[in-house]
Amino acid sequence: MKRIAYLGLGIMGRGMASNLVRAGFDVTVWNRTRERCRPLVEQGARQADTPAEAVMDAEVILYCLSHDAAVEQVVFGEDGIMDGISEGQIAIDMSTVYPDTSVEENRNYVQNGLDFLDAPVFGSKSQAAEGRLWIVAGGRKEVFEKVRPVFEPISESAHYMGETGKGASMKLVGNLIVACLLEALGESLVLASKIGLDLDLVLDVISRTDFQSPILKSTGAQVIERDFTTQYALKHMYKDANLILKLAEELCSPAPALAAVRETIKAAVNQGWGKENASALVKELENQAQMAIGMEQYV
Amino acid sequence: MKRIAYLGLGIMGRGMASNLVRAGFDVTVWNRTRERCRPLVEQGARQADTPAEAVMDAEVILYCLSHDAAVEQVVFGEDGIMDGISEGQIAIDMSTVYPDTSVEENRNYVQNGLDFLDAPVFGSKSQAAEGRLWIVAGGRKEVFEKVRPVFEPISESAHYMGETGKGASMKLVGNLIVACLLEALGESLVLASKIGLDLDLVLDVISRTDFQSPILKSTGAQVIERDFTTQYALKHMYKDANLILKLAEELCSPAPALAAVRETIKAAVNQGWGKENASALVKELENQAQMAIGMEQYV
Amino acid sequence: MKRIAYLGLGIMGRGMASNLVRAGFDVTVWNRTRERCRPLVEQGARQADTPAEAVMDAEVILYCLSHDAAVEQVVFGEDGIMDGISEGQIAIDMSTVYPDTSVEENRNYVQNGLDFLDAPVFGSKSQAAEGRLWIVAGGRKEVFEKVRPVFEPISESAHYMGETGKGASMKLVGNLIVACLLEALGESLVLASKIGLDLDLVLDVISRTDFQSPILKSTGAQVIERDFTTQYALKHMYKDANLILKLAEELCSPAPALAAVRETIKAAVNQGWGKENASALVKELENQAQMAIGMEQYV
Amino acid sequence: MKRIAYLGLGIMGRGMASNLVRAGFDVTVWNRTRERCRPLVEQGARQADTPAEAVMDAEVILYCLSHDAAVEQVVFGEDGIMDGISEGQIAIDMSTVYPDTSVEENRNYVQNGLDFLDAPVFGSKSQAAEGRLWIVAGGRKEVFEKVRPVFEPISESAHYMGETGKGASMKLVGNLIVACLLEALGESLVLASKIGLDLDLVLDVISRTDFQSPILKSTGAQVIERDFTTQYALKHMYKDANLILKLAEELCSPAPALAAVRETIKAAVNQGWGKENASALVKELENQAQMAIGMEQYV
Repeated sequence: MKRIAYLGLGIMGRGMASNLVRAGFDVTVWNRTRERCRPLVEQGARQADTPAEAVMDAEVILYCLSHDAAVEQVVFGEDGIMDGISEGQIAIDMSTVYPDTSVEENRNYVQNGLDFLDAPVFGSKSQAAEGRLWIVAGGRKEVFEKVRPVFEPISESAHYMGETGKGASMKLVGNLIVACLLEALGESLVLASKIGLDLDLVLDVISRTDFQSPILKSTGAQVIERDFTTQYALKHMYKDANLILKLAEELCSPAPALAAVRETIKAAVNQGWGKENASALVKELENQAQMAIGMEQYV
Repeated sequence: MKRIAYLGLGIMGRGMASNLVRAGFDVTVWNRTRERCRPLVEQGARQADTPAEAVMDAEVILYCLSHDAAVEQVVFGEDGIMDGISEGQIAIDMSTVYPDTSVEENRNYVQNGLDFLDAPVFGSKSQAAEGRLWIVAGGRKEVFEKVRPVFEPISESAHYMGETGKGASMKLVGNLIVACLLEALGESLVLASKIGLDLDLVLDVISRTDFQSPILKSTGAQVIERDFTTQYALKHMYKDANLILKLAEELCSPAPALAAVRETIKAAVNQGWGKENASALVKELENQAQMAIGMEQYV
Repeated sequence: MKRIAYLGLGIMGRGMASNLVRAGFDVTVWNRTRERCRPLVEQGARQADTPAEAVMDAEVILYCLSHDAAVEQVVFGEDGIMDGISEGQIAIDMSTVYPDTSVEENRNYVQNGLDFLDAPVFGSKSQAAEGRLWIVAGGRKEVFEKVRPVFEPISESAHYMGETGKGASMKLVGNLIVACLLEALGESLVLASKIGLDLDLVLDVISRTDFQSPILKSTGAQVIERDFTTQYALKHMYKDANLILKLAEELCSPAPALAAVRETIKAAVNQGWGKENASALVKELENQAQMAIGMEQYV
Repeated sequence: MKRIAYLGLGIMGRGMASNLVRAGFDVTVWNRTRERCRPLVEQGARQADTPAEAVMDAEVILYCLSHDAAVEQVVFGEDGIMDGISEGQIAIDMSTVYPDTSVEENRNYVQNGLDFLDAPVFGSKSQAAEGRLWIVAGGRKEVFEKVRPVFEPISESAHYMGETGKGASMKLVGNLIVACLLEALGESLVLASKIGLDLDLVLDVISRTDFQSPILKSTGAQVIERDFTTQYALKHMYKDANLILKLAEELCSPAPALAAVRETIKAAVNQGWGKENASALVKELENQAQMAIGMEQYV
């Protein structure tokens, strides 16, 4: 496995594509807005004009797109992946999409003699850049084992979750926790501010206890410094929360906390912060508190 | 500082008292139900009949009680701490109580010539037993520094948060996150079960990503094995959630997720699981899902 | 306008069809389970074997189906309405469906030379039986005016809301209030029970104040007598809550209370009460309270 | 019963006092800010300088105060009611307070040989002015019957709910519904606006169906005209929601919808709208929607 196509060079995709080039793979890239391909081309990647062209000679086709509709378009649309594939290839969707979408993709690939994995990733911009993502994959076990060399340079670990759709599902299950954690961080920092606690001290405590978490520590520090540089876009967290709640609705699975969290995210998106980091939901909580973190004293 | 009084030998208190005896302090213990004192006495502690008697000769008075009413009773009640104190002693309340309670305690101690710290702890039964708690303290800085030798054998780290009440406040701020995390764990495990994911695989993933957390890993494993042995009692998490929401109400600080989480905890307490581990809230989510974790397949 | 086709004889449909027969219209009925047609046939209606056959000679085609998928099936499926229509007819969808479904239906009817209204109804079984429903319609105003004689025997009032989809939307907007009202009724009756108030007195008060409402009064009385005879099925309220939240998600419109209410409904559906009256959500609140209404005393 | 003392001339109190004067009672009034007494004095009431003075010659003592702390102050404070009472009088607290407060008041009055009723009222400014309130009373039944002539000129109906505290409890139970209804109104109007529905048409529909309610109709109309003139102050609804949730916490009674509603109210209070009408919570929903009602089109 030498020849790889990588489609979708967003925050996550560009990191993964770059690490694959660096690892010596022969990578062809495609992105809807062409300019994003340049850094990869400078690194040695080939640029294709359409998804169909990009995948034509690839042994493994990887893509990481923004949402289900983008997958629909890039895979099944005009000059899409389906127009360039040939038997024996392996397609891997790394986007965070609804499990039904993965199942639909798989059905179409299999009909055309390809193998397919739904293999979304945990981690954000930094982890993508450093090749330390966590991959959760669904599909045939043999296929998963076969592509391990491709997962190697982009991930810390790769987890086989079961048949098609189980990778996509696992991603949603995990993001339920992420969304609740970021909301909990926001509610606690705003409360701490209202109390008049020193937020640096608060963060120091939070970073040491048994409920510490790398994401709490890093995001907490950024929020306190009012750094909302996008690692995981708020609008993507809105999309993900919506997908999780759709799945919970379909399966009649309770999600009262996430339902409340979605409302905060929704309001933050309405404020126009969709392209900022997911932690920008804290700003909506600040709105509701009529207070900026670290500014008010409780007397 | 050699002579210590330790009052309240619940899940947390007995671990702390035991570690203080082991560290060579001369410890007098008291507990409402006397039998709980025996293991400490066997370890070498002296047993007192009343709080007043327990604190009489102590240089430092420590107590860790179940709730504000218990503090009220033990400190201000008949034969309570106030009846045994003398000038120059240091009193330290390690209970999780409302910050106003700490302020009230401090006022009374100061009037009698004592120093006071509100110094609740993060961590649960295991950390208490192993002397690896995280202490968050409010009060005078000098007093905090002075009692470091006492904190040493019971804690991983001790954090000075500011004036009286800031320790108690920090504890509530942290527990907001804990409650949301346990709910998120529950919602995600129930959803994963409904999907038909292998929960051991799910937990393995959750334990490696950047939203990993020691509490998610340990509690997650226990929940999957249906082990609800009390580390942090559900009824105490209900009490804590109530205190946090009271503080948020008073300060007009937004807490939509915690408000939803409290409802799950409340229902779980109603089911009679108050004395089990806080993770028993998952069983209420299972009730609402009409499914036991790991038992159902989504087809 | 004399010849009418009525498809879908559920709780609502049978009342409407019956009132149309009684009013002298020449009605052809169809229902998926054929037996439900019998009472209408006995009343004088003609029975068709398929939707296509039912609509063939009708001037006005009315249907009231359970959900979007049923509409999809009956309108576009094999031997569906589309297979029997002819130019000049008027089709009226009285189901509670997503506005996009109405738009899609309209597009297809217009292409075939028909007119279309989305015209769902407020009210439940009793109002349907008594011809006192409230119709909210979207589509062309002239068409709305033209079919008034058909609306006459089934409704208290008919409201023109605007272009296609506005009837369906209005229905969802109204049902948001209904779902919140029933939840509020449940939360207040359970609380009143826990307090130990006499529920008949409570209901008497609620039925007189300025927040009185016919639905509170009638449903409240039924709940107290533990009568959950279906007027508006719980599973339909679940479907409706889901549609409203989908619309709110798409439009980024806040719905924190409804989001919480949906969780109660979801849990109640999981308990197996989907076919009972929507007020059965109270039983889920009773579960969470571990108390049956009217049984417990607060001391 | 001729001589009445009326304390507390807020939005509700002034209406009630005025109707009592008009009905021919010999009324002595007192209010914290003295100017508010003037209109009553002009009507013929006598003005007292302190609560103690006001109640001295009264047969029946009525008061309607803002919150528990105000009751505490006016009843038990310096020159408070307790300082002016004498055996045989009847005291009636018409404020919306926590049931425990009523029980405490009763205990003190009874010790002094007085009778007591907790008798809060439903209705708002208009109903108070027109003497059409709904009274819900707790205490001894004979006392309730005895004071009927006093309730007559101020109420539409008076309801005996049971022993002391049951009036206060009933008020909270009812206000749970009011708060949810106003939130539901807000969520539905914002959603209707986002959809692009004509809000006058929406209100017309809502005002006719079986979920119609006088409060929905009147408040809905005011909101659409952006009239937030205080009938029932938002800050009082915040206080009431807090009291209800405290009661639900104590009794472990589920209140997920109200918990969500309280968050909206809290945020609206933070915006500075506490003195406006309770319906101002809609403005917070507008904030979260980034849209003013009636201004946006859904395309």
